[in-house]
Amino acid sequence: MQLRDYLPFWAKLDGSQQDRLNRAALYCTAKRGTILHNGSQDCVGVLVLTDGRMRTYTLSGEGREVTLYRLFERDMCVFSASCVMRGVTFDVTIAAESDVSFFQIPSDLFRELMRESAVVANYVNELIATRMSDVMWLLDQVMYRRMDARVAAALLEEAELEQSEQLKLTHEELARHLGSAREVITRMLKYLQSEGLVSLGRGAVCLLDEAGLRRLAGDSLR
Amino acid sequence: MQLRDYLPFWAKLDGSQQDRLNRAALYCTAKRGTILHNGSQDCVGVLVLTDGRMRTYTLSGEGREVTLYRLFERDMCVFSASCVMRGVTFDVTIAAESDVSFFQIPSDLFRELMRESAVVANYVNELIATRMSDVMWLLDQVMYRRMDARVAAALLEEAELEQSEQLKLTHEELARHLGSAREVITRMLKYLQSEGLVSLGRGAVCLLDEAGLRRLAGDSLR
Repeated sequence: MQLRDYLPFWAKLDGSQQDRLNRAALYCTAKRGTILHNGSQDCVGVLVLTDGRMRTYTLSGEGREVTLYRLFERDMCVFSASCVMRGVTFDVTIAAESDVSFFQIPSDLFRELMRESAVVANYVNELIATRMSDVMWLLDQVMYRRMDARVAAALLEEAELEQSEQLKLTHEELARHLGSAREVITRMLKYLQSEGLVSLGRGAVCLLDEAGLRRLAGDSLR
Repeated sequence: MQLRDYLPFWAKLDGSQQDRLNRAALYCTAKRGTILHNGSQDCVGVLVLTDGRMRTYTLSGEGREVTLYRLFERDMCVFSASCVMRGVTFDVTIAAESDVSFFQIPSDLFRELMRESAVVANYVNELIATRMSDVMWLLDQVMYRRMDARVAAALLEEAELEQSEQLKLTHEELARHLGSAREVITRMLKYLQSEGLVSLGRGAVCLLDEAGLRRLAGDSLR
């Protein structure tokens, strides 16, 4: 497992920069459910995912969650190095959604590289802009989309991530993902069941009519 | 009016870069209400505000607006050069909220400077992170705050911007600002009036009890 294979800007770095990265980067693994980063007090460094899936979410004052975006193999996470990112005043939490392995680049080194290299700085630019686009999409969803469409879209998204129409998913988990209350989600799932789109079991949702869910989801599908 | 006085990274640019900026930047003025940038098709360049106030907002599919953030003197707007910003997949509209004057730096030149200079790229980084922080704040508001607190906070914000407790503001305008429906805002303003916090006139809202509004706004005040 070589860091060089996971950084798209590697070839644009000079020998000293490559050297410092190789000497400082850690290669880590963590179990499903591990909290990898928790709020802006935390500055664990830049994470480069080599295997598995991470979920980035925020917490409201009352502890309600909403998923902002997910990270997959080869994705880089810069908000885990929030101390490096000037202008960031929000807190996110990053959790391993499956067993994960990743490189961890220390914040100080990454700050140095951003200062020295316009290529690295511009790469980070694009990354932040992409994450901001995810948040803008979510804002649009929350403000203007109906909850039934959002639940349908979330179920289709989960089915694609898990490559299965049998989802191990509690109403509580779905509520956390969508930033809603469990009661709201339960009501919505029962409605989808009554329409013959899903069937509900204990801690499980089975997709019965993907085309129907897709129609309902409409613009809420990414 | 010198561009050099408005760019914090000016001293870190080399002679050629300063020269290209001086030769390419336009100095423009526009009347209150002018749409300065409209969606991602538009790439008018980077704007550096020297006087007045701009409002950045998004439009839902159905044409409902919500204010993302405002720009004041010395603020730089990079989303008006959206073609330069890789990773940006959302559209914003930027309108002059008062008569404004600003420098306009062509997108192509700005892209060159970002490529050449880590200082410029990192400045843009910070800028995008700040805007993303604004949007995260808004997301939190929309998801978790009560509309009465949001209206109270918006009225206090307007009063501060206008330096007056007599606001010329229609229910329609306030609804657009908050991404809500006019009927919802009207109901909320009537509630605030019944509580003795404001008085309502035709196209006007007068703040009667700032401390009371402040208590109601709570965490919704930025």
